[in-house]
This record gives sequence, structure tokens and C-alpha cells, in this order.
Amino acid sequence: MKAEIIAIGSELLTPYRQDTDSLFLTAKLNQLGVEVGFKTIVGDRRSDLIGAARAALQRADVIIFVGGLGPTEDDLTREAVAETLGRQLQRDEEIVGWLRARFAERGWKMPENNARQGDVIEGAEVLPNKRGSAPGQFLYTLYLGKMRAILLLPGPPPELEPMFEEQCVGRLRKVLPPLFIATRELKIAMIGESLADKRAAPIYSKRTDVETTILAGTPGEVQLHLRAQADSQEAAQKKVDSLASALEEEFDDAVFSAQGESLEQIVGYYLEMRGATLAVAESCTGGLMAERVTSVPGSSRYFLGGAVVYSNELKVSLAGVKASIIKEHGAVSNQVAAALAEGIRERVNATLGVGITGIAGPTGGTEQKPVGLVYTALADGHKTEVIERKFFGDRERVRHWATQQALDMVRRKLM
Amino acid sequence: MKAEIIAIGSELLTPYRQDTDSLFLTAKLNQLGVEVGFKTIVGDRRSDLIGAARAALQRADVIIFVGGLGPTEDDLTREAVAETLGRQLQRDEEIVGWLRARFAERGWKMPENNARQGDVIEGAEVLPNKRGSAPGQFLYTLYLGKMRAILLLPGPPPELEPMFEEQCVGRLRKVLPPLFIATRELKIAMIGESLADKRAAPIYSKRTDVETTILAGTPGEVQLHLRAQADSQEAAQKKVDSLASALEEEFDDAVFSAQGESLEQIVGYYLEMRGATLAVAESCTGGLMAERVTSVPGSSRYFLGGAVVYSNELKVSLAGVKASIIKEHGAVSNQVAAALAEGIRERVNATLGVGITGIAGPTGGTEQKPVGLVYTALADGHKTEVIERKFFGDRERVRHWATQQALDMVRRKLM
Repeated sequence: MKAEIIAIGSELLTPYRQDTDSLFLTAKLNQLGVEVGFKTIVGDRRSDLIGAARAALQRADVIIFVGGLGPTEDDLTREAVAETLGRQLQRDEEIVGWLRARFAERGWKMPENNARQGDVIEGAEVLPNKRGSAPGQFLYTLYLGKMRAILLLPGPPPELEPMFEEQCVGRLRKVLPPLFIATRELKIAMIGESLADKRAAPIYSKRTDVETTILAGTPGEVQLHLRAQADSQEAAQKKVDSLASALEEEFDDAVFSAQGESLEQIVGYYLEMRGATLAVAESCTGGLMAERVTSVPGSSRYFLGGAVVYSNELKVSLAGVKASIIKEHGAVSNQVAAALAEGIRERVNATLGVGITGIAGPTGGTEQKPVGLVYTALADGHKTEVIERKFFGDRERVRHWATQQALDMVRRKLM
Repeated sequence: MKAEIIAIGSELLTPYRQDTDSLFLTAKLNQLGVEVGFKTIVGDRRSDLIGAARAALQRADVIIFVGGLGPTEDDLTREAVAETLGRQLQRDEEIVGWLRARFAERGWKMPENNARQGDVIEGAEVLPNKRGSAPGQFLYTLYLGKMRAILLLPGPPPELEPMFEEQCVGRLRKVLPPLFIATRELKIAMIGESLADKRAAPIYSKRTDVETTILAGTPGEVQLHLRAQADSQEAAQKKVDSLASALEEEFDDAVFSAQGESLEQIVGYYLEMRGATLAVAESCTGGLMAERVTSVPGSSRYFLGGAVVYSNELKVSLAGVKASIIKEHGAVSNQVAAALAEGIRERVNATLGVGITGIAGPTGGTEQKPVGLVYTALADGHKTEVIERKFFGDRERVRHWATQQALDMVRRKLM
């Protein structure tokens, strides 16, 4: 079975806006065993919309129109789909009454234009919208002897997503061949995408019953998406789980997440489980390490705080680094990274201290200490571990890689 | 003139990947006076590609195929476009020689498959690729009596973008009606999108000669994109500039950027211009303020550093807040925000100190101090200014709004 998603709206044809609903819909359709064959993005022009609808009817079994269900003259999806199918639009007075009541609740009178949102294509079921004014529509049609399911959905994700999950999945499942899908997502830290693929390919390429997609996540993260289908949920789950186990064995403890969690979530999970606390002193990452750790709700239970020490004076006064170490080895050095980790750990009285120093670029590099050189250190009060790495890419990438390295050190320490 | 962008690749029909090249291409096409009428995303299947190409030939003047130019069996763009146009593919031995040399440089032998990248559609001009192995192609064709420009471009942005700018813009300009486009981008801080639109609409809606788009940027930022066309660059520029002036007058000093710069860039620019330095002590934003300031290359010239002080102990020990103030007013208070700003400024010996404390959520709120309540303070050694705000949205939005508020306070102080 093949689906086509048609996103409607002239703003989606500007350089500023992008259709994102299709990503959500694709994930949900895949779970129903339906592949997306085409995505089309079209403006608010009746003839363009009809052209897109005609093309879709020829090539897709499930056709989802997203957007263009509002009350304005620009909202043409209802009219265009009806015309393409050669069906009438019928005004549903129940919807119009509901719309009027919705306005009245806010103390307003409904502009007569808005009654257009009550126009329903002959034969379509109405999908009530709990979070907005545009109801969806669901219908079947025969096209050249083939059954097509046609959905009209509102564009805003808070309206579309529950409408699809609550009102469309069940309807589609009834007419689709029974098929169960299971997915798994493994995440790997500090291994590049091509190396990860080189190690994973001999394993997953043998398994034609599981679809595997390797993706680069944020810098320092590679994702392995596994998907299998079968005629029972258990059988599908067994397929992905057995491949996941084989991949976990290959990558061993580089796999930090087996269910899609982020590295900062996993680090938080371990810190909390061990009753440990964390403090950071960062130079070149400028607060990104602290920001990532504290992006997790509840992180105040294990993250005490830290210092962002760009200047050498602050490395001394805030993070307790001895000025002589900076003088002897330079601010970007193994020794200063260690001193940052040890210093902040002591000052803050944390279980673990992290220190990061390096050259994020684009300027400031030298032959001995090039842009991308970063030292990350982890101190636990007994010993201090330092890793020297040369990261590639722009300022943003180098900074992200550096924090990924530091988070991964914390994870491995607590594992 | 209307364009259609056809993005090719089965990975673009998964829930994980999205076509982004079309945003770049749309911006560039708009500058040439060409609107994008359709975007189509299609997988690596020959019949699907031919169907998409046929539909595009009927409805667009400029058709850009993106991707599918690699050396593998899955790369079918060349074949499919040639078949759609009823033209032959001819192997260009010059390209094949160049490909062989490219491999030899790395000490490898070219697999014979790769010679496919030298297949050129009859009548097409070859667009050399400086950054990858897939050359582009550019051709004209007559379709039902109408001239169509057809472009085949590689998918990776570092290859596509210079190829389009250096080799396609000039070729297209030659055949397009002479038209000059000018654009401006104003950014406004700390005003919501709907309020901004309410104030801007009476001004821009009178100006039908300038296209205005209002967009919400990151939380706390609204963008006004202006675009006008005319038969000379000066005339087009005059149109956007006069509307920009009228809008700047309306929003006054809430406009922080008149050429698209980010707020952190503008703050950095002012700090450097005034020879001032900055230090920050942040609680609920957890390092995001420092991270934003230091995301700007060269920020070490004006940013000294700061403290991320989640725990009360650290507010005292790192940022110099008196414990009695926290005890009396609570950690989330006007007084503690001020003490953070003053304390970090003194410790670090900076011109300006920023303090942020609040409740980012999702938990931790009370009736008196709800989630979203944030105090931001700015100290300059003479007086300390504090702003209390209640921000809406999730943890990420609240944290972003809070740093936006703090950055805007620094900007206004230095203006």
C-alpha cells in the first residue's frame, strides 16, 4: 500500500516555512504498513490543487491532504477535492451550529464566511476537531477500479496529530491488510556515521526481514533505526529485537540508548540512580555542556552547577585552577582540563567534575594547537581522566562534539 | 515564471529526513523573480520519477531535480529525465577521465559503476562539481510549445549551493525577463507574533508593491521579511527600504536587527564597540545564556565567563549572593536576580553582569511562583535593573524567552 501526502499552503513554498506534518504522518503510516510514495507541496491555487489531487489518485492508495481547511477564500482544499472527485459539497448544519457556539463562547459573532468550514464532501465522514475550528474529512472512492482512502486534515500539528491518531488510524486499519510493525532505535556515541555503517552493515545486511536506516544525529551521535513487519506484534518485535541484540553486541558499550533516549537523559538517569552529583567547568563550549545537562526536566536533582571560564582569570578564580598550570602548559592543555575538572568538583562538592578546554574556532588555532583540538576531563576525587581529541567542522560542530565526549565520559564512568 | 523543485531519494520519504535544499533554492529563485509553484518529493523508483517529471513539464517553466546523481543503481535521475524528454544519454569521456583522476588522487581505482556519473542527457550542458563526484546538468527543452529550463543538481548542500549560485543563476538570468528583487529582514525582540502583526499590518497592508511575511523566530523574536521587485535594483531597494523605515518607526527600539543579524551577534557588536565586557550568573537557564553569547565567533573578546548556579550553595559560593537574601526572598526572586548580576559582575570584574533566576518547569511551580516566572537582572556597577516576566510554553521555550529577555536588556543598555 502506498500513500501520498499533499501539503497545501502558499507559505510552504517560501524560503521560510517547511511542511513538517508529513514526518509525523509518515511515522504513523509506516506503523500501519503503508509506505509514503510521494509528497507534494502545493500553493493555495485551485487549479494547482486539482492537478495535484488528480496525480495522487492515479498513484496512491491513501491520499492525505493537509491544510487549506480554514474559513478564508484561500482555503480551497474542500472545493478542490470535491471537484476532482466529481462530488458535491454539502453544508453540514450541525458543524455550522458547533462553529457558531464556539464563537459565542468567546463572546463573538461568527462571520458568515466561517460557515464554509461546515462544507462536507458528499459521502465523507466528518472528523471533529477538538483543538481548532476546522473539522477533518474521511472518505473512500473508487478510481479506475481501485479503492482510495482520502483524508482531509487541518495543518496545525496540535490539531492534526490527535485527529490522525484518534480518528484515522482505526479507520485505516479496518481496510488495510492486517500487518504489525515493530521499531527500535539504537543510539551510538562518539563513532562517525561511515565507520558505524561499516561495522553495522555486515550484520544488518544479512537481515532482509528488518529494514535498517543509519542516520547521523547531532555531532557525535549515530542512530540505527530498525523496523520489521509481521502478522503478529510479537513476531515483529522478535525480529527487531534479535537484530538490535546483534548490533548491541558489535558496538558494545558505545550504544548508549536502546529506546531512543538522548545522551543527556541517559546521563541524568545514571546520575540519579547512583545518587551522584555533577558539576562542570567549561571554556570553549561556553555553557553548552551545562545547557545540555539542564535541558532535562528534573536535572536540578543531580546537577549542582558550574562555571563558564573563558578568561584565564576566571579559570583561576571561579574554577580553582592554579595560575602556574595555565602559565606552564597553556589554557588549552591536558593539565588545565584536569585542573578544571578537579577544581570545580572540589569547589562545588560534587561527586563528579567535568572540565573542557579547547579551540572551537574559526580563529585562534596554531600549528601546535589547531582549531578543533579539545581536552575533556572527568574527576571523581580519586583519579582524573583526560581525553584529547581533534574534532572537525565549524564552531558549532566542534562545541557539540566536545560536550558529547564529556557526556559520554560521565556515562561510561557510571555504567 | 514558475518553478518546480523535485527532490529525489527514498530517505526523504522516511520519518527521519527532510528535503531542505528547496528552502535555499526557493530563496535564490525568488531573487530571480521566479516563484516556486510546486515541490515534489519522490523515491528512487524509475516510474515514480518519470511520473513526477511529466507532471512538472506540464506546469512549470523551471524544473529542478535534486539528488539521484550518484554512482549506484538507485541513482536514476539521469535516466528518468532522459526518458521523459525522449532524449539519449551520452557518456562524456571527459567526465569519466576526471572521475578516474579523482579516485587515483586518493590512491583508489574507480569502480566501473561510477562511470555512470559521466552520462549526459543529449543537449545538456555539464555543470562541474568542485566539491563532489556528481556533475550537474542544465538544458532547455520545448514542451507543448513552451520553453522549459531543466536542471539536475546533486543533493548535498555543500555541492548544490555553490553549483547553483556560480553556474545556474547566470544561465537562468539570461533567459528570464529582467527583474530585480530587493529584500530586507527586520527582527523584533520581546513582542509576540500576533501583537507584532497587529501593529505592523496597518503599515504593510497599504504597500501592495512590497511582499511582507511575518514569522515567529526563536521564542521572543519576530521576523519581518520584506521583498519587492522592480526593473532596476535601485527602484526595488527603494521600495523595501521605505517600508522598512515605516516599520522601524512603529516598533522603535524593539527592532534589534535591520539586516537579519541574530540578537547575540548584535549584543556582541555593541559590547565590542563600547569596549565593554560581560559576565553572567544563571540559574534556570542552566548555561543557555552563556552558550548563546559564546556561539558568536570572537566572543572571547567581550565575554569573560559566568556561573551556572542551580543549587543555593553555588549561588553563594560561585556568584557571591548572600545566603540571607536567598533565605529571606527565596531563590526565585527579584532580589536574588539582582544579587546574581551584581555578584558575578564584581567577582569577574566585568563592565556588565547579568543574573537570571526562575522556574523553567515542567515541575517546581507554586501558586505564588508558577512555572514560567523568571527574573532577569542587569548590573552595571551603578544601578541594577530587574525585569519580572511570566513566560508561557514548555521548559525549552521558557529558557529561551528568559535568555532573550536578558540579551535584550544588555542591548538596550548599550544602545
